[in-house]
Amino acid sequence: MLSSIRDGFSIRNPKSAFRNQNSPMIVTLLTDFGTGDYFVGAMKGALLAVNPRAQIVDITHETAPHDVEAAAFILLAAFETFPAGTVHVAVVDPGVGSSRRAVVVESVRHVFVGPDNGVFGYVYERVGPLRVFHVTNEKYFRPRVSATFHGRDIFAPVAGALSLGVRPEEFGPEITDFVRLPFAAPQRRTDGTLVATVIHVDRFGNCITNISPRDLDEESIRRGVRLLVGDREILFFRRFFGEEGDAVGEPFAIWGSAGLLELAVFRDSAARALGVGRGQKVEVKK
Amino acid sequence: MLSSIRDGFSIRNPKSAFRNQNSPMIVTLLTDFGTGDYFVGAMKGALLAVNPRAQIVDITHETAPHDVEAAAFILLAAFETFPAGTVHVAVVDPGVGSSRRAVVVESVRHVFVGPDNGVFGYVYERVGPLRVFHVTNEKYFRPRVSATFHGRDIFAPVAGALSLGVRPEEFGPEITDFVRLPFAAPQRRTDGTLVATVIHVDRFGNCITNISPRDLDEESIRRGVRLLVGDREILFFRRFFGEEGDAVGEPFAIWGSAGLLELAVFRDSAARALGVGRGQKVEVKK
Amino acid sequence: MLSSIRDGFSIRNPKSAFRNQNSPMIVTLLTDFGTGDYFVGAMKGALLAVNPRAQIVDITHETAPHDVEAAAFILLAAFETFPAGTVHVAVVDPGVGSSRRAVVVESVRHVFVGPDNGVFGYVYERVGPLRVFHVTNEKYFRPRVSATFHGRDIFAPVAGALSLGVRPEEFGPEITDFVRLPFAAPQRRTDGTLVATVIHVDRFGNCITNISPRDLDEESIRRGVRLLVGDREILFFRRFFGEEGDAVGEPFAIWGSAGLLELAVFRDSAARALGVGRGQKVEVKK
Repeated sequence: MLSSIRDGFSIRNPKSAFRNQNSPMIVTLLTDFGTGDYFVGAMKGALLAVNPRAQIVDITHETAPHDVEAAAFILLAAFETFPAGTVHVAVVDPGVGSSRRAVVVESVRHVFVGPDNGVFGYVYERVGPLRVFHVTNEKYFRPRVSATFHGRDIFAPVAGALSLGVRPEEFGPEITDFVRLPFAAPQRRTDGTLVATVIHVDRFGNCITNISPRDLDEESIRRGVRLLVGDREILFFRRFFGEEGDAVGEPFAIWGSAGLLELAVFRDSAARALGVGRGQKVEVKK
Repeated sequence: MLSSIRDGFSIRNPKSAFRNQNSPMIVTLLTDFGTGDYFVGAMKGALLAVNPRAQIVDITHETAPHDVEAAAFILLAAFETFPAGTVHVAVVDPGVGSSRRAVVVESVRHVFVGPDNGVFGYVYERVGPLRVFHVTNEKYFRPRVSATFHGRDIFAPVAGALSLGVRPEEFGPEITDFVRLPFAAPQRRTDGTLVATVIHVDRFGNCITNISPRDLDEESIRRGVRLLVGDREILFFRRFFGEEGDAVGEPFAIWGSAGLLELAVFRDSAARALGVGRGQKVEVKK
Repeated sequence: MLSSIRDGFSIRNPKSAFRNQNSPMIVTLLTDFGTGDYFVGAMKGALLAVNPRAQIVDITHETAPHDVEAAAFILLAAFETFPAGTVHVAVVDPGVGSSRRAVVVESVRHVFVGPDNGVFGYVYERVGPLRVFHVTNEKYFRPRVSATFHGRDIFAPVAGALSLGVRPEEFGPEITDFVRLPFAAPQRRTDGTLVATVIHVDRFGNCITNISPRDLDEESIRRGVRLLVGDREILFFRRFFGEEGDAVGEPFAIWGSAGLLELAVFRDSAARALGVGRGQKVEVKK
């Protein structure tokens, strides 16, 4: 693409992510705080207090309150377009004030900060290699940490420090028992059947599964597979919405704009037509 | 005004718009994506991937879905305050995936990017001279363009490239048959009557017409004109809301903050009082 | 904290706030304009027209329309986290177009711009020393000031000028009769009773009072005080939500994340449980 795209950085030499200190460091925010109260503003201030040059980009502050899986999906669908070196902060945190850990996740291109509750569950599946650190170093926190607002008091200043070039391992010890999401990736049965899950229903009623092109290649689709949603078989794979021959009401599968297989109905809600929601199992048989 | 305002640039030498590469290049976004999903975040990431120094400014992401005219009005009322060199992206795009064209619009002070569906219809009427280019050069797109998300895959990276100084003509051929809005500007009948249209009703019920001061000068108003909304005559021109002598319930005309003639009722909704909405014809007779 | 935090500046030498012209100058916005119309976009453009390098941060645009006290609380709870030199713009302005004054408020660390209607009432109580200036110098306004949109035509360009380093006294004469909020700070009766007020009810129903730690120190709490909300006595002070021994339904007091004393009920709405709202008097007796 354009030559101006910033170079990625190697996990073997993560320092390179931070080498161009004249570039603004981009920090994205994803929370369930809503936009009508003081929470988002206070969090941005705490971040800018650490790095006034950070370029803050809102992904959303309106995910369903405390819905970790919904936030995890939005992060998955949004983060990959950002340039290398971006810091992503995700704070959907029903366990704030409890003993849940804070983590920094370092991948080859991006760094993530948030609670260790599964909000990075899809990132763990799609991005590799990566390292996860338990955030314990209080020198990067705000002086007084409240019991209820870690977005402002821990996650924002840690993100600010990361955007200044502080290395992920400075925040605490590496861990391997970080919290994953149970249905982040499809499972393969011994008979070769792929057991997948609807992980998101969008506002049009399209049902987005956790099946990515690496789970189901074009060659397999061409040779023919059976796609089952409960008792119902999805008979068509489409390349575009509104393809010639589409019957209204007939569900089909399509690679959606999030890069995952979606169940859709032309000009209708697949969720309603199929009677399914998030968590629905989807099987792909050869 | 203040000396810090950036210089405009001449259409004859558009390169000058981009001469100060140390200034942040401002890119505004106007979409109907809503702010609760991943769409806006993914679009911003795609833009920053091309130009990490772009300064992104949200105009709104909450125009009525697929309402091209509403978005066109918001763009009209917001864009002119921005400094010269700003890139404006407008993505309200019911025809995404169809054969509707993408366009770059170059005016003397600003550049616009979006679908060729009328979303720049008011800009065409208010700004001149300008040139319109059909965006066809795929080298400025994301590597894989989805059928449904051109905001991320085409408009954002094209805006990023424009903000880096890529010239509008690099994106494709100039066109002259771009899509205009039917009621973007008032028409004048042979008897001198100005036939105008209510193009927006704001949240207070004020009815904003497409009449600008160049259609109706102060001299004409002083000499007396008749302003007719259907069968009803508007008897008063006001300079301020709540002017002395205002009767509650009495509709009046006023130059509103968008720079257009509005129909208003003191402390009431003119739309309700007059029983009119968007599309209502308004006549000005001498 | 981190060494990257920008230095504060002395009220005696306010120029120092502006000495690092290479740093982006942060400008926050707090309005009741909503995010669905053109108002916020036009205001940002007017600000960037004066200082294209200003870094605009939205606090919120969704406070209750014309609710000056609600906006004043959000500003109070959000502004302190921002780095020294930040310019805060607050436009909740039911009196726009009337004779209410515009003010610039200079504190040791921050500068504020907005209408003189009480929106800075809590700032006046919490921050000191400060100076307040009546904004009269039209050279910093947009060329034509509309009667209804001072956010765009006065406050945004004044904020832009402040972010460029224009000194607060350049905008007009210092005043001392600026508008305060009646219940911004608790009052102390001659018998030592502290008479406080609930100034905000958050979305969880927690009732935030105007009592700060300087009104009620830990030593007093340890020695025992009586906290009365109308006829009801609050029997417990908690350090954390969900502390051991919490009975569901039992109201308690806690230092909340805004740095003020809150009335709360574990997993319930204190506002509902106590039958109170904003404006409720709270007494602390020794």
